[in-house]
Amino acid sequence: MPGVPPTRFVFLGPEGTFSEQALKSVPAADRGVLTAARSVPECLDAVRGGDADAALVPLENSIGGQVGVTLDELAGGEPLMITREVVLPVQFVLAARDARPLDAIRSIAAHPQAGIQCRDWLRTHTPGASVVDVLSNATAAIGAAEGEFDAAVCAQIGAERYRLHILAKDIADNPDAMTRFALVSRPGPPPPPTGDDLTTLAVYISHDRVGALLAVLTELSVRGINLTRIESRPTGERLGRYVFFLDCGGHVADLQMGEALQALRRICADVRFLGSYPRADIHAEPPPRPAPGLSDADFADAAAWLRRIRGSGTG
Amino acid sequence: MPGVPPTRFVFLGPEGTFSEQALKSVPAADRGVLTAARSVPECLDAVRGGDADAALVPLENSIGGQVGVTLDELAGGEPLMITREVVLPVQFVLAARDARPLDAIRSIAAHPQAGIQCRDWLRTHTPGASVVDVLSNATAAIGAAEGEFDAAVCAQIGAERYRLHILAKDIADNPDAMTRFALVSRPGPPPPPTGDDLTTLAVYISHDRVGALLAVLTELSVRGINLTRIESRPTGERLGRYVFFLDCGGHVADLQMGEALQALRRICADVRFLGSYPRADIHAEPPPRPAPGLSDADFADAAAWLRRIRGSGTG
Amino acid sequence: MPGVPPTRFVFLGPEGTFSEQALKSVPAADRGVLTAARSVPECLDAVRGGDADAALVPLENSIGGQVGVTLDELAGGEPLMITREVVLPVQFVLAARDARPLDAIRSIAAHPQAGIQCRDWLRTHTPGASVVDVLSNATAAIGAAEGEFDAAVCAQIGAERYRLHILAKDIADNPDAMTRFALVSRPGPPPPPTGDDLTTLAVYISHDRVGALLAVLTELSVRGINLTRIESRPTGERLGRYVFFLDCGGHVADLQMGEALQALRRICADVRFLGSYPRADIHAEPPPRPAPGLSDADFADAAAWLRRIRGSGTG
Amino acid sequence: MPGVPPTRFVFLGPEGTFSEQALKSVPAADRGVLTAARSVPECLDAVRGGDADAALVPLENSIGGQVGVTLDELAGGEPLMITREVVLPVQFVLAARDARPLDAIRSIAAHPQAGIQCRDWLRTHTPGASVVDVLSNATAAIGAAEGEFDAAVCAQIGAERYRLHILAKDIADNPDAMTRFALVSRPGPPPPPTGDDLTTLAVYISHDRVGALLAVLTELSVRGINLTRIESRPTGERLGRYVFFLDCGGHVADLQMGEALQALRRICADVRFLGSYPRADIHAEPPPRPAPGLSDADFADAAAWLRRIRGSGTG
Repeated sequence: MPGVPPTRFVFLGPEGTFSEQALKSVPAADRGVLTAARSVPECLDAVRGGDADAALVPLENSIGGQVGVTLDELAGGEPLMITREVVLPVQFVLAARDARPLDAIRSIAAHPQAGIQCRDWLRTHTPGASVVDVLSNATAAIGAAEGEFDAAVCAQIGAERYRLHILAKDIADNPDAMTRFALVSRPGPPPPPTGDDLTTLAVYISHDRVGALLAVLTELSVRGINLTRIESRPTGERLGRYVFFLDCGGHVADLQMGEALQALRRICADVRFLGSYPRADIHAEPPPRPAPGLSDADFADAAAWLRRIRGSGTG
Repeated sequence: MPGVPPTRFVFLGPEGTFSEQALKSVPAADRGVLTAARSVPECLDAVRGGDADAALVPLENSIGGQVGVTLDELAGGEPLMITREVVLPVQFVLAARDARPLDAIRSIAAHPQAGIQCRDWLRTHTPGASVVDVLSNATAAIGAAEGEFDAAVCAQIGAERYRLHILAKDIADNPDAMTRFALVSRPGPPPPPTGDDLTTLAVYISHDRVGALLAVLTELSVRGINLTRIESRPTGERLGRYVFFLDCGGHVADLQMGEALQALRRICADVRFLGSYPRADIHAEPPPRPAPGLSDADFADAAAWLRRIRGSGTG
Repeated sequence: MPGVPPTRFVFLGPEGTFSEQALKSVPAADRGVLTAARSVPECLDAVRGGDADAALVPLENSIGGQVGVTLDELAGGEPLMITREVVLPVQFVLAARDARPLDAIRSIAAHPQAGIQCRDWLRTHTPGASVVDVLSNATAAIGAAEGEFDAAVCAQIGAERYRLHILAKDIADNPDAMTRFALVSRPGPPPPPTGDDLTTLAVYISHDRVGALLAVLTELSVRGINLTRIESRPTGERLGRYVFFLDCGGHVADLQMGEALQALRRICADVRFLGSYPRADIHAEPPPRPAPGLSDADFADAAAWLRRIRGSGTG
Repeated sequence: MPGVPPTRFVFLGPEGTFSEQALKSVPAADRGVLTAARSVPECLDAVRGGDADAALVPLENSIGGQVGVTLDELAGGEPLMITREVVLPVQFVLAARDARPLDAIRSIAAHPQAGIQCRDWLRTHTPGASVVDVLSNATAAIGAAEGEFDAAVCAQIGAERYRLHILAKDIADNPDAMTRFALVSRPGPPPPPTGDDLTTLAVYISHDRVGALLAVLTELSVRGINLTRIESRPTGERLGRYVFFLDCGGHVADLQMGEALQALRRICADVRFLGSYPRADIHAEPPPRPAPGLSDADFADAAAWLRRIRGSGTG
């Protein structure tokens, strides 16, 4: 229900992975009930069906590789709305049942993508160990806890949950890598603007309209709307139809975003509004200063001027 | 005074030229007082100073070559507003005091530009005559009436006023040439939209902003605003500042024009609104059908959709 | 070596998955040696290091979810080049050790994404079965072959390799879904144009350049280059730097593509050319007819005209 | 004949006006034969017909208001080429047969536009005098020399030719006003690039192509071609066809201008190249520094890179 904070949360399981860790950083989740689901579709179906108030699902650059699924699920079916983003640094640990020297490790369990992300570190520090693919970071931690493997590549939260000893921290090769999650609810009034928000859209473009994407970007650009992410995906339903997922700087309540959204509504085959929400703190940089003529004040001044010339013929 | 039809008119003199002919086609001028002024600045000063309610001045492709003056005068000084355009075909006549064969004509008075516009016709039909430059089409007619010249190139109205006999009609080499005039008043509420209007703007651009004109045209184009005329003029006041005169399809009261005007207000050094007024009938072609997404209905639908997603998160 | 067909191929393993099936559709692979690798980076490192001549790796919408890895690997490290794309319909089968009625199946092994893609079918036809996540489509087939599970969701080639009985074909919920693979070699002269080619680029954009993506698309659009795919990815190396992966219609040898590539080279932080190669037959639609002024003939005519005016001042 | 400096010059008469003054600033005119013609068409016909090697005609902001004629004449008929621009400050003098106090002047002869341009000065300094329209600045000077009028508003050269005494200099109200002239020849190899050149084009656009002008400007903008002037004119020959006159920064021999010209040739109904020639010194400002990616060096680097990737697949 709009205005009422969610209390029943679902997240992409299993427990002990980055999704749970991300959900725990959401304030309301402290006092809520948290349930793991097996897949992104199950998470979102729980919200759609009313069994949960909000779902925490990976959106971008996820370890589990389910990002495409999230986008496809948000773009189709009953409408849903992102109310919050959570951005986590990808920080893997190497953990084992007990403290042991790295050169004593012979087998390491890792989700395939976790293995890839720590490849250089593992080659350098555990050259004698074989890396075994497992289904999730949590599965890796469990495997180490149960002694099936000497060690696991997993999330901090997974090591804690399964009482593993952390042999090494920050073992991902790329220290800047992030995972981005979305907290998703049924549609309602968007959270109020904070001055540094993002708006996520699914924009459908017909294949036969040359320059359609250029037209979309032009509508954003002329109104000073910045784009922080764009991803194209084919839509299964009809060959030759594309959907673009856009993360735009700004809030649906802003004058400029309102104008831009109306323009996309007019020129695109379809637009689905997927939410306006505060940008996560972790983005080091402040939002770029608007170019001349594109600030909030410029938009307000122009609206006042138009009212004057419409009324009296002179501004 | 807004709403009250003008009764005191001034036009670019002298009497007996195309300007007077154009003014006489304006319905309200039938019942009004018509005065000739010596120059475009005097015409417009009469309106600015309250000595006249409206001025009829040439705007484009004029015989008298004073178009640039009109534009410069409208762009500077006290604001004025175009409330009507009048488009006249450029139809010169060859006239003389009495009927006479063309090959008996030895001297023809003509305004220099009138002479140029009828050059081929005169070469062919009066090869033995010398063409003498005079200061206006009316001066030419007077010269023929007074016997100073054998004949005059002039406007139909000039031949009538000075009781000349018309030796030949439609002698301009280009039968499609038009002259366009503007009826100009002090600012007030623009005339209501008719569904086929023009809006005239003076848009100032700073020299140092590369691509500024491209930006202006993009703002118009994305909102489906068509451009029927564009002219650049340097502004004397500061080197490197340009003013563009734009005639745009649409009315200041339209949603799309309103959005576009606000955008120009934001991104340009300055914008002067010079009026929204009905397109003159003489334009043979109807306004082009708006491209997909750019019709009035599309704009209305998009505005309604935005209200829905702002309110409930879903459209 | 350029011109010499590759003979040693590596593909994303394990054997019996869609990657192997895709590789087998490449003519030269018939007479070559095919080796499975554990991950996309290992595939590409084999080519970079000279241990293989070509690698077949998933590029888009892959079952294994490794697409991002492929893109990141192609964008960084030693340059590689795509010489061929292979597009396979995503056609899952349900297979078991022997023929059995669907309602007798209690457990089904499936890669998590395969399970998601067949979710509706499984719910409808095997409502009593539990779906168990396994690490790959091949693992699923092996699990069924060894009796660990009653059935497997897998690729046709996996069912054949492990001598499974196919209980149902075409069980993916979305019959139009495709997986797209790339055959990747060390750089060399691109394959000759066929008249229907794609060119893949990795385009780097600095975060602080507003409108940079718009600029990129404009350069393509003005030269009539169509875009069939675009994907943005953050680059780990420096915050605020983005890389876009573009699939463009046309070949590096084309006049228009040559102009466009030069333009991207000029305006982007960096551009990596990732290959020009024939578009796979499976795309039902022919390439769109170029807009007026954008055909090959138009480009050739314009080049000839320029030579004339440069030489003699008139075209 | 290309390469041979012109020796027979024609200019827009009568003698003693700004056109003659402008022509005398052209070095080759020192040793040439200078002839006045009655109109711009006569000037250009003299060149087309071989009776003159070059014509000096007003191009912009001219006193005589014949600019439109020049443009129309250049756009139609046998091709001609601008080889040089001459920019003169509009500097009027008030001159009389002999020295006399300003308050003794009762009548002043002036071309109508000269009168307008000096209106404020005349109102202030000769409030008791009546201004009489005459056909040219030279006619005004002659009228003063012959005693028909007490004084004349004319060009410095006119005062000198008719041995008038200059009563006041620099009497134009706008001290920044300029007149721009073109030296026009039959087509030939353009003069070599100087690093600061202009290229003039007549670009034809079909009325029914929405956004055509935007497309033209985009082609210029993406190649860093700056626009210093744009003017639209309807073409008489067919209703609904427009011609735009563009002055662009750069030379036809430049890489970037060559690309841009080819693009216009492709997308426009027609393009007429009207010449590349050095920018006149009088423009105070140096040409703007090219934006990143748009310098000559950037274009050369990109061409070299394209050759590398076409040859070896990697840059």
